[in-house]
Amino acid sequence: MASAAAPIYWLGKDTLRVSAKLFAENRRRLCQGLKAAGAPPSAVVLLQGGEQKQRYCTDTDQLFRQESFFHWMFGVTEGDCFGAVEVETEKSILFVPKLPESYATWMGEIYPKEHFKEKYAIDVVHYTTDITEALTSMNPAVLLTLRGLNTDSGSICREASFDGISGFQVNNAILHPVIVECRVTKSDMELEVMRYTNRISSEAHKLIMKTVKPGQKEYEMESLFQHYCYTKGGMRHTSYTCICGSGNNSSILHYGHAGAPNDKTIEDGDMCLFDLGGEYYCYASDITCSFPANGKFTKDQRDIYEAVLKASRAVLAAIKPGVKWADMHLLADRVHLEELLKLGLVKGKVEDMMEVRLGAVFMPHGLGHLLGCDVHDVGGYPEGMERSSTAGLKSLRMGRVVEERMVLTVEPGIYFIDHLLDQALADPAQSCFLNSPVLARFRRFGGVRIEDDIAVTSSGMELLTCVPRGVDEIEAFMADSEKTLSPLVSSQEL
Amino acid sequence: MASAAAPIYWLGKDTLRVSAKLFAENRRRLCQGLKAAGAPPSAVVLLQGGEQKQRYCTDTDQLFRQESFFHWMFGVTEGDCFGAVEVETEKSILFVPKLPESYATWMGEIYPKEHFKEKYAIDVVHYTTDITEALTSMNPAVLLTLRGLNTDSGSICREASFDGISGFQVNNAILHPVIVECRVTKSDMELEVMRYTNRISSEAHKLIMKTVKPGQKEYEMESLFQHYCYTKGGMRHTSYTCICGSGNNSSILHYGHAGAPNDKTIEDGDMCLFDLGGEYYCYASDITCSFPANGKFTKDQRDIYEAVLKASRAVLAAIKPGVKWADMHLLADRVHLEELLKLGLVKGKVEDMMEVRLGAVFMPHGLGHLLGCDVHDVGGYPEGMERSSTAGLKSLRMGRVVEERMVLTVEPGIYFIDHLLDQALADPAQSCFLNSPVLARFRRFGGVRIEDDIAVTSSGMELLTCVPRGVDEIEAFMADSEKTLSPLVSSQEL
Ligand SMILES: [Mn+2]
Ligand SMILES: [Mn+2]
Repeated sequence: MASAAAPIYWLGKDTLRVSAKLFAENRRRLCQGLKAAGAPPSAVVLLQGGEQKQRYCTDTDQLFRQESFFHWMFGVTEGDCFGAVEVETEKSILFVPKLPESYATWMGEIYPKEHFKEKYAIDVVHYTTDITEALTSMNPAVLLTLRGLNTDSGSICREASFDGISGFQVNNAILHPVIVECRVTKSDMELEVMRYTNRISSEAHKLIMKTVKPGQKEYEMESLFQHYCYTKGGMRHTSYTCICGSGNNSSILHYGHAGAPNDKTIEDGDMCLFDLGGEYYCYASDITCSFPANGKFTKDQRDIYEAVLKASRAVLAAIKPGVKWADMHLLADRVHLEELLKLGLVKGKVEDMMEVRLGAVFMPHGLGHLLGCDVHDVGGYPEGMERSSTAGLKSLRMGRVVEERMVLTVEPGIYFIDHLLDQALADPAQSCFLNSPVLARFRRFGGVRIEDDIAVTSSGMELLTCVPRGVDEIEAFMADSEKTLSPLVSSQEL
Repeated sequence: MASAAAPIYWLGKDTLRVSAKLFAENRRRLCQGLKAAGAPPSAVVLLQGGEQKQRYCTDTDQLFRQESFFHWMFGVTEGDCFGAVEVETEKSILFVPKLPESYATWMGEIYPKEHFKEKYAIDVVHYTTDITEALTSMNPAVLLTLRGLNTDSGSICREASFDGISGFQVNNAILHPVIVECRVTKSDMELEVMRYTNRISSEAHKLIMKTVKPGQKEYEMESLFQHYCYTKGGMRHTSYTCICGSGNNSSILHYGHAGAPNDKTIEDGDMCLFDLGGEYYCYASDITCSFPANGKFTKDQRDIYEAVLKASRAVLAAIKPGVKWADMHLLADRVHLEELLKLGLVKGKVEDMMEVRLGAVFMPHGLGHLLGCDVHDVGGYPEGMERSSTAGLKSLRMGRVVEERMVLTVEPGIYFIDHLLDQALADPAQSCFLNSPVLARFRRFGGVRIEDDIAVTSSGMELLTCVPRGVDEIEAFMADSEKTLSPLVSSQEL
């Protein structure tokens, strides 16, 4: 096999080939960053990979998905590994579990260490049982372990740990900010993977728009999305739980979880808001399409949709290195309010509405977020950067200035959320801008979100997502029953 | 909605309606069992449900799946709950999390406690924050919490715990054996759900047999199975990670995990061994079909397949209340060896082969296991029952005598596993029975497993699985390209 010479991850057929060089480059970037940050000579980075876990106390394995930092550095798909990198030399060491003989019966071939060395283009492979010995022989001045805050979850990542680590000098403070900074901007090879995840997920969205009709259950569309992404794109995981909201459910930002499991019947007249993203080799996509279930926008649906589209397009036109992401959020808010003013849902001066953060009544979430190995990728708020406490902006997952090679979602939305409307109507500072009789018509309308993934270029952005976006375009696309628009949609089982 | 009067779980269309009475009956059975076991008067059973978890330190939710004991007692689909039952009165109490107002924006409607009371036909609903107060007011002699060994995983289940539990008398020993004993036999309502999971999963297997062809990737069949089960059956989860082994992979018993992720191309001439089961409302199915990828058995494939089928049919004919499950395992072994003798793969007397456990060289796993809310359901070895230490039998997940209302898998198989053959050939006690030149032809053959789910009746068994099983039947079925054999397979998106 050619894979020994130039190892790649590939799931066959038309799926993407990803070179192991992607991870070597990530390690190089990390080592350079650590040197620049003054990491001691002969420091060794040590990460612990994700563990294979079971459902509660049973022996039913949960489907393993690698931990994202570990994936970013090593691209290893197996669980229960450790990985190390010598900062000075960039030498990589992978530690794999030593498997019992019974593994060969139950789980498959027990590969020698050499197999993993070649599969992942790693310099040295040891068994995890030999980790103390192997690390000792490297005589590191210090082990750099990973400890730090995930600013989206509020959780602290788990630091590598093994019997014998107490014999080493360990520093858990240096690594996290540096590796996070590396993950914030994407390499050419990473961008290529994210173009792919976007292409496949866009095609799956398009298939759904061709397939959806009133009378179906929302989860049928979730199932179709997953099937397309997996069978055509090799995506065994989605980036996040599928959101298939129809009717009023389209106003629930994270609909689709176990408490609201995409189980409504899609009705004639419903808006659909489908926020779905496939993941390939632990790189995410995150795309939302909004459209009427029956393929024809009502006047109100068209009006709200076009307001959001205008905000989306204004932001896409404005994004470039150097702009503040928070300003993009405010730009979207402003366009929304201008459009809602034209439609008579709000009244007064947009400037005054901005003062009282009226935009957040209709778009309570942030404009978008970094995207990478995690759907809400790390690094939105580096240490010391404060998060706004005002409505809407406080939900923004990134407080930074936009940089080249960031991958971001741009996902403005307008939603009619009962309790937020009630709150605003009860607040004299906001209610004076609301036209309640018109607003009343939009109760149970749901919401519209238009979410694209973009990569920031030197002078603007590259749009990674490719789905019908204009109202007329969507209507024409949904009316055309021909399903084989994409070469990937021609197989008989779809 | 009628659901207030007679609450049901239903995912619409042709999916199964499951009455909340199923769980009331389970609670009743449990309380009767506890009384019979001498539980103190006014004891209260307390279970902690599964928790919503995230991928590592990120905010990406893992798709929630209820913990099986909790599901069995309450049928609650939401995470982060507690549940209690007063043994004397069978009164049920559910504790649900008190959700913050922001939940309504992000996750959906915040339902009042009354909603859960009606949705699940529970007597009383409290917030989890009120658990100490609510339990105190019941004045229980003792709280019965769940602690015990899962005999398949070797893990101890997590005991309910909350701030304030130290104020109660707690007993964690009484509950586990009694609830496990209840789960071992299935009620009529549970059997109805398992008939359904088997019907849908059988249909999905049949669709795969119609669709498979050389050149496809194994994971395409995994994807198709999951899509069928979800879109037609409302099954968001499978009972276990899909096993889609082709060629030599069909000899890897638990193929399909992250280290061997169904990523081989299916080749002309391959045997396929697809072990796939969908799960509905936390009730499992577990079905294996084995067939040639190209739809035509070779002579060798037919011979091995028919040997396994003969074992399967012998066991199905023999199962009834009172037989020892281990004897069924030995019956399958014996039939396998008799057939392998006829085929010239082994030589000598079957009786002598049985003495040296030669059957386990070809079938290293157990004949089958209990099936229920877990695919390897609890209760295989009640406390005090010892597990055999001999080859094959030591892998048997149930050591009991067969009882009416048990649901079991019957899954004999013959595999050609290199390292097991090598071991046997190196062992004089076994090698004398092996015909190595003939055996050599079967290296890389893979394996055949035929797995059906059955419910034990008063006089025999009910076969829950319905897929083509005979060689001629399979060949005819696969040759017929008509896909609409089942009314559920007619929809356009399949
Ligand atoms: Mn997003
Ligand atoms: Mn099984």
